[in-house]
Amino acid sequence: MSDSLFEYLLRLADDRLVLGHRLSEWCGHGPILEEDIALANISLDLIGQATLMLRLAGEVEGKGRNEDVLAYFREAVDFRNVQIVELPNGDYAQTIVRQFLFDVYSYHVLEQLQQSSQLELAGIAAKGFKEVRYHVRHSSEWMLRMGDGTEESHARAQKALDDIWRFTPEMFVADAIDDEMLAAGVGSDLRAIKPKWDSVVTDVVTRATLSIPADAAMIGGGRKGRHTEYLGHMLSEMQIVARSHPGAEW
Amino acid sequence: MSDSLFEYLLRLADDRLVLGHRLSEWCGHGPILEEDIALANISLDLIGQATLMLRLAGEVEGKGRNEDVLAYFREAVDFRNVQIVELPNGDYAQTIVRQFLFDVYSYHVLEQLQQSSQLELAGIAAKGFKEVRYHVRHSSEWMLRMGDGTEESHARAQKALDDIWRFTPEMFVADAIDDEMLAAGVGSDLRAIKPKWDSVVTDVVTRATLSIPADAAMIGGGRKGRHTEYLGHMLSEMQIVARSHPGAEW
Repeated sequence: MSDSLFEYLLRLADDRLVLGHRLSEWCGHGPILEEDIALANISLDLIGQATLMLRLAGEVEGKGRNEDVLAYFREAVDFRNVQIVELPNGDYAQTIVRQFLFDVYSYHVLEQLQQSSQLELAGIAAKGFKEVRYHVRHSSEWMLRMGDGTEESHARAQKALDDIWRFTPEMFVADAIDDEMLAAGVGSDLRAIKPKWDSVVTDVVTRATLSIPADAAMIGGGRKGRHTEYLGHMLSEMQIVARSHPGAEW
Repeated sequence: MSDSLFEYLLRLADDRLVLGHRLSEWCGHGPILEEDIALANISLDLIGQATLMLRLAGEVEGKGRNEDVLAYFREAVDFRNVQIVELPNGDYAQTIVRQFLFDVYSYHVLEQLQQSSQLELAGIAAKGFKEVRYHVRHSSEWMLRMGDGTEESHARAQKALDDIWRFTPEMFVADAIDDEMLAAGVGSDLRAIKPKWDSVVTDVVTRATLSIPADAAMIGGGRKGRHTEYLGHMLSEMQIVARSHPGAEW
């Protein structure tokens, strides 16, 4: 049980740590100050959720690894995030589409995890759920603004949706660990979440005058440590300071 | 009056925009997740204060320049920040010493500006003052932790203090614009703030078992657009997205 729970917590944490770090790359690059601040705040929420989840994972593991060790001293193959969160920022349309598709997923996952029998996880989810409600509103509004905006913004949003869509099925793959966590009352029910996600995403995409892409061959494997080349580059930048000063104390 | 007020608001805004952007460069580079989040939050506070100040500056100027145009489409020679805020992050000791010396300054400036006869500015200062109280506490605690920490951290903190000290007198240079704003009840009294700043800084530095450096030749000129080479590099990165898509609409 504790091995599965550790693995389960890493999945939840790494989705948010990696996406939070990706978003932070926008920080200070405008071109709109208020939007810059909004994205940075969302990034901080995600990294904050990941921090709490990694801390709990370290306690569950019981080998003395804290959240910083887990964040900064694992290799890419040890990361358990879905691949969609590691995709590059691209243009702002790519960033927003990636964010929207994950936000709606995270909303439903955290909503359910508030009732987890693992009480620390339930508490983290309750805090995160308040945050992700804002995230969904923010990214949905941008979907509408871009999709139903200028010809250029519409084309960019549709292209982003077409490019990223094949990374979405991975979020709903339920394996033995998901089943064990669900049966134990700890985890969320990905099979039940999928139709809810479909419904919300279809609604917003349609209102944004965009088209849901045709189903394509699924891309994935992140939960087992198979990642795109992008993750390695991101981690090397994220981890360099910590690894240059291992065990540094102030 | 409105020319002087515009100039005065740019000084306040640019100090915070530049320092906020500098701090954001740490975002996601650890090595401690919680500290990463703390610095990013402080960065966001500063950029948020700058946004409000630049918006007000644009209204006072009355030429249709909003906060984004002022942030992203001015050259380095048009920036009015003191040089201390544009210094590179260096190691964490440099970042914290730079932050502490500015935080204490900003605390006293914003404290006074809450009583500004320019009511929008008074409101911005009241919001910012709540934030800077936390900033001072954060950077003071790190000063103590580093100065009174390991031999290595003490040496790094003292070196940072020695390196940065000569940039501090510039913060207190009061010129004709400061005098005009003070006389009009709009601005803060830099001459009155200096001894308060001295007192707080000396107290914390002493408790951190560090030494106040000897007075050296003052470096400065930022209020008149004279900047270190570092500002140009920073702005080119900060402004590239906005300048690549001038007038972009979504």
